[in-house]
Amino acid sequence: MILPKASCLTPTQLDEVTRIVSEFDCQIQPIAGALRTIYAIVGDERHELMMNRIEGLNYIDRIDRIQSPFKLMDRRCDLSRGRLKIGQVMLGEELLVIAGPCTIDPNNPNYFYETAAAVKEAGAQAIRGGVWKPRTNPYSFQGSNRSLDILMEGARRTGLPVDTEVMDEAQLALALDAGVTILQVGARNALNYSLLRAIGQAIADKPEVSVLLKRSLHMGPINEFISAAEYIAAFGNPNIMLCPRGTTPTLDGYRNHPDESVTPLLKEKTWAAVVVDPSHSVGKAVYVPSASLAAVAYGADGLCIESHVEPQKGIGDDPKQSVTPEELRALIVRARGLWDSMHDAPKAKAA
Amino acid sequence: MILPKASCLTPTQLDEVTRIVSEFDCQIQPIAGALRTIYAIVGDERHELMMNRIEGLNYIDRIDRIQSPFKLMDRRCDLSRGRLKIGQVMLGEELLVIAGPCTIDPNNPNYFYETAAAVKEAGAQAIRGGVWKPRTNPYSFQGSNRSLDILMEGARRTGLPVDTEVMDEAQLALALDAGVTILQVGARNALNYSLLRAIGQAIADKPEVSVLLKRSLHMGPINEFISAAEYIAAFGNPNIMLCPRGTTPTLDGYRNHPDESVTPLLKEKTWAAVVVDPSHSVGKAVYVPSASLAAVAYGADGLCIESHVEPQKGIGDDPKQSVTPEELRALIVRARGLWDSMHDAPKAKAA
Amino acid sequence: MILPKASCLTPTQLDEVTRIVSEFDCQIQPIAGALRTIYAIVGDERHELMMNRIEGLNYIDRIDRIQSPFKLMDRRCDLSRGRLKIGQVMLGEELLVIAGPCTIDPNNPNYFYETAAAVKEAGAQAIRGGVWKPRTNPYSFQGSNRSLDILMEGARRTGLPVDTEVMDEAQLALALDAGVTILQVGARNALNYSLLRAIGQAIADKPEVSVLLKRSLHMGPINEFISAAEYIAAFGNPNIMLCPRGTTPTLDGYRNHPDESVTPLLKEKTWAAVVVDPSHSVGKAVYVPSASLAAVAYGADGLCIESHVEPQKGIGDDPKQSVTPEELRALIVRARGLWDSMHDAPKAKAA
Amino acid sequence: MILPKASCLTPTQLDEVTRIVSEFDCQIQPIAGALRTIYAIVGDERHELMMNRIEGLNYIDRIDRIQSPFKLMDRRCDLSRGRLKIGQVMLGEELLVIAGPCTIDPNNPNYFYETAAAVKEAGAQAIRGGVWKPRTNPYSFQGSNRSLDILMEGARRTGLPVDTEVMDEAQLALALDAGVTILQVGARNALNYSLLRAIGQAIADKPEVSVLLKRSLHMGPINEFISAAEYIAAFGNPNIMLCPRGTTPTLDGYRNHPDESVTPLLKEKTWAAVVVDPSHSVGKAVYVPSASLAAVAYGADGLCIESHVEPQKGIGDDPKQSVTPEELRALIVRARGLWDSMHDAPKAKAA
Repeated sequence: MILPKASCLTPTQLDEVTRIVSEFDCQIQPIAGALRTIYAIVGDERHELMMNRIEGLNYIDRIDRIQSPFKLMDRRCDLSRGRLKIGQVMLGEELLVIAGPCTIDPNNPNYFYETAAAVKEAGAQAIRGGVWKPRTNPYSFQGSNRSLDILMEGARRTGLPVDTEVMDEAQLALALDAGVTILQVGARNALNYSLLRAIGQAIADKPEVSVLLKRSLHMGPINEFISAAEYIAAFGNPNIMLCPRGTTPTLDGYRNHPDESVTPLLKEKTWAAVVVDPSHSVGKAVYVPSASLAAVAYGADGLCIESHVEPQKGIGDDPKQSVTPEELRALIVRARGLWDSMHDAPKAKAA
Repeated sequence: MILPKASCLTPTQLDEVTRIVSEFDCQIQPIAGALRTIYAIVGDERHELMMNRIEGLNYIDRIDRIQSPFKLMDRRCDLSRGRLKIGQVMLGEELLVIAGPCTIDPNNPNYFYETAAAVKEAGAQAIRGGVWKPRTNPYSFQGSNRSLDILMEGARRTGLPVDTEVMDEAQLALALDAGVTILQVGARNALNYSLLRAIGQAIADKPEVSVLLKRSLHMGPINEFISAAEYIAAFGNPNIMLCPRGTTPTLDGYRNHPDESVTPLLKEKTWAAVVVDPSHSVGKAVYVPSASLAAVAYGADGLCIESHVEPQKGIGDDPKQSVTPEELRALIVRARGLWDSMHDAPKAKAA
Repeated sequence: MILPKASCLTPTQLDEVTRIVSEFDCQIQPIAGALRTIYAIVGDERHELMMNRIEGLNYIDRIDRIQSPFKLMDRRCDLSRGRLKIGQVMLGEELLVIAGPCTIDPNNPNYFYETAAAVKEAGAQAIRGGVWKPRTNPYSFQGSNRSLDILMEGARRTGLPVDTEVMDEAQLALALDAGVTILQVGARNALNYSLLRAIGQAIADKPEVSVLLKRSLHMGPINEFISAAEYIAAFGNPNIMLCPRGTTPTLDGYRNHPDESVTPLLKEKTWAAVVVDPSHSVGKAVYVPSASLAAVAYGADGLCIESHVEPQKGIGDDPKQSVTPEELRALIVRARGLWDSMHDAPKAKAA
Repeated sequence: MILPKASCLTPTQLDEVTRIVSEFDCQIQPIAGALRTIYAIVGDERHELMMNRIEGLNYIDRIDRIQSPFKLMDRRCDLSRGRLKIGQVMLGEELLVIAGPCTIDPNNPNYFYETAAAVKEAGAQAIRGGVWKPRTNPYSFQGSNRSLDILMEGARRTGLPVDTEVMDEAQLALALDAGVTILQVGARNALNYSLLRAIGQAIADKPEVSVLLKRSLHMGPINEFISAAEYIAAFGNPNIMLCPRGTTPTLDGYRNHPDESVTPLLKEKTWAAVVVDPSHSVGKAVYVPSASLAAVAYGADGLCIESHVEPQKGIGDDPKQSVTPEELRALIVRARGLWDSMHDAPKAKAA
């Protein structure tokens, strides 16, 4: 990782650096952070001669020689100084809550509009809503392009950023065109590297867009999760939230095996924000408040919670796992109270 | 389950009831609770004629026909009205904290005395200390009877109840003789039904003694855990705390797979107190505070935490997973704050 | 599922049936089997009126009312009468062995040519070779389009069908254009429904193409695995082999947790062939022969094995998990011997 | 591990060696093998001076300095040269099959007698039968001492050795007094070190007695399993069979998660025989033949299979998981055929 003295390299400087690394079969990938642009060396970085020549350039501050399977996502990387802002929330300064229904019902758009308004009122700072849904049964409802308009209308009415899952390049293009600013990658595609790369490319020059990357379904290694995020970041947009959401095998009684406990392990290795999804983890509304609080206890930066004004009328997973906006409000008060007490935040914010 | 109108049956009444059930190859097991004695029918309870005859007796209030694999531990059982007191702490009224070293070092008793005093000062209301230890390696230190005297001396000095693990009947007898009032059953013996029965028998008439029953190592079913407790309760002493302590397979990065999330599932089925052991769960001191808070978030009634005045000097698991008394104090303040906020307890108690 | 009396419906008949189901918001999907074409009703099949009207048509034999999350893959479905042929091997008549290197080295094509020839000589009836590879580390070698030419040259030289993994629509198109006849979907994309659908569409009219669908990484439910295959079959090409390949959490000592034992559970529910990949399961060459034999013991129809003439020179997973062609030959003799003894096949075939 | 030149040390020699190691706080534990007696040093073996002094004695052949958590069970240990004989079967020379009902019904002894005769006729060389049973539900039938007489009568009638589970010291004493020669330790007591030690002590001078040690319920490490066996062997009787029997979490569709695949991992580390229990692993009779064959494929030395002449009349697990003697016979023919082909055994034996 090359760190320039100035906020970024001039075109001439970039040319020179590119020329040097190309002698060693490497390439340069600029990563535009909020504070300054840094430059990843893609290829085998272990050429000491190459490193020394770059380090010797008078406009280079220093080179980070981080030995890590994920050099951009590594917490020792310079990107850790950046900050991620979702709507009005600066991650790390207050607890982020994303809420909304599992799946937008294209035949009943009002459920979404009412839910969006209600979760905002309850304290959510971003709205989630499934336009397209991965379904185990191929003959189940898979979502509808019409729901995308409903999602964006919800965004307009509430003034909040919206989060929706994309499963392929076609959906990705539609979502970005419509103005979605939080792209969700689901557990089933958490290791779909072609999709992650396509997202990374598509948002490389869209700093207003971020990605909520769910953890894969299996009790897999931490490094695999963070490395998946690296696929996105490698194209230059590091706005990534890692999202534990429960794993398989399940804990007898829940939908999945709660895994908010993975949060401190992630934070030890990466600077990325961790936003936990307790709804898919436990899979029943009655357990969501405890699981939310546990996520905060483990250091989560945010929560992604399914909520619906009338859960029984929801399509998708709502009838089982969505909390009502009233339950959401109580949950948020308690979760923010704990978050603030853990971060020595001013009491005023918790109120 | 037979519930008498008075606080207990007279000997004549008990005789009559026993005679009736014996006609149906059943037996009567009295369970002496704090409020009143109830009477379990051991054997096949599904004889309607038997049930009706007992229900017709004028000194019988009613019969609980609970269909459950664990009729005494079932939360619908009358025992749920009882309360468990550990030292000065009434479970459910404030957060119980048991703390102390993994293993008492018989060659350095002062470490235990100092730790016991320090964890009491930090807020613990009971002391743990391993006298005998199950060790994977048969040639590792397995504990020493000498440590039992040290444990009891620590109890005397602090005035707090002490908790130690027993692994067989010989240790059980020694521990009870010495005055241990919290018997711990470890994860490796969590389904050792002969031991559980022996404990149940030994403490049947010792209401001052309680059992901390660890969860087995595997990701097993909830019912199996609660049924193991039923083995103890079936002899009449229902002073049981269920203790999740992490399971296998491990979460990559921790010693085990944190399982405090099992707490709400347990509480839905049983009235028993849940006391979580975050130390064995995560296995590294640095993660213990988060895991403790998460346990409280999930509704735990207490925590069992390894602590040592000089963790590096500890034998057993201490060097890796024990927190210092100072860390314990900070952890307790935060955990009690959360517990109190969840139970609308008076702020004064949190201080 | 609609079964015509003749081998297929005439265009006029198909029109009539389509008209009927469209009244109930359903559609017709023809599935062209080897013996005859059957017609799936896509949508809510539970309209008794619709079913009765179709059943009353004089050119309709009967309607299969299979209640299953996967109506085409269900073993009670008429498709179970079909047969899958890979190269010269009719699945179910002899044990299929697919073998070859993990990843084709574009800089050393001869390794692939020599390996292809050697595994054919050792008894393999199809060749595998990775052109594109999903890699945890985004900066690792991800494969090369040049390898596709090498793969097809290997196919030409050996006269055997070739199997390669595709991870997105671009690779799918390239592979089909080049003439690949076994498309592999890897464990990381096993639930990537957009990709499965794209494959289903792309091969709907290519009965010479089949799919080797790996099991997902997690210890997930059987139905989820078979339902993923339904995404492909729903477009009309049922040439699908289900491929267990080990799951996570790992069995301490292996790369994954061997799961050939899932075979009888799959076969109880679906007619699809099961081809086990022991190489990824155990992850070390020395264990591959035992795991191969165990797969046959559990009823597998085939094996997919990594092999390389010089494993240490392989890129990808070869150095650890590839067997040599000599080891492959011994393994095949033993595995075929067991397969034949279990299927009462003529001894001659085992030779 | 001290290896004498002669088949064992004389009392005088033993005294001298004991005196030397006691200077270093160690003790000597003789292990009487079939070929010769070897002598374990219990305590810290890393005193070079101690080792050198012993090695210098003229009646000492050499000292094995094996660095292993289990020095006796380690496959590099001299004990690996020993052989275990169960009834007429020398382990490693032919496949051992232990068969019989889950639980002996004390009210219907003829079921056991008939089953014992039938499984012998089908090819079993040892008989299993549960006298005492660990049951999740404390109110379920837990076995009966009367069944011990039935078990021994079955042994007398068939002339075969019998295997039964013991769960505590009282049962252990009863079983040994009655003449049981295969003591089974169940999965729930697999890490009950007090019991393992008690067994080790009780059979130290009974070379005709062996132990079938089940694997614990969890997906735990290999070393933990072998170390548990070391607790028994440490007292001098190394007649131990390791018994994988399925783990938790379960494979959806089976009772447990089949784990015969652990066999090669065990054999790489220990010389102990591996006898797989497919009945508890899969938990349904229909899957037992495949699982048995898979166990042999993975290198098992024997099988422990539940069988009952009328499975539906069995108590315990029989109705679900017992095969009939006829099914057992077919299974044994196939399993022996595979075993023999893998061990180049004379065809005659397979007949």
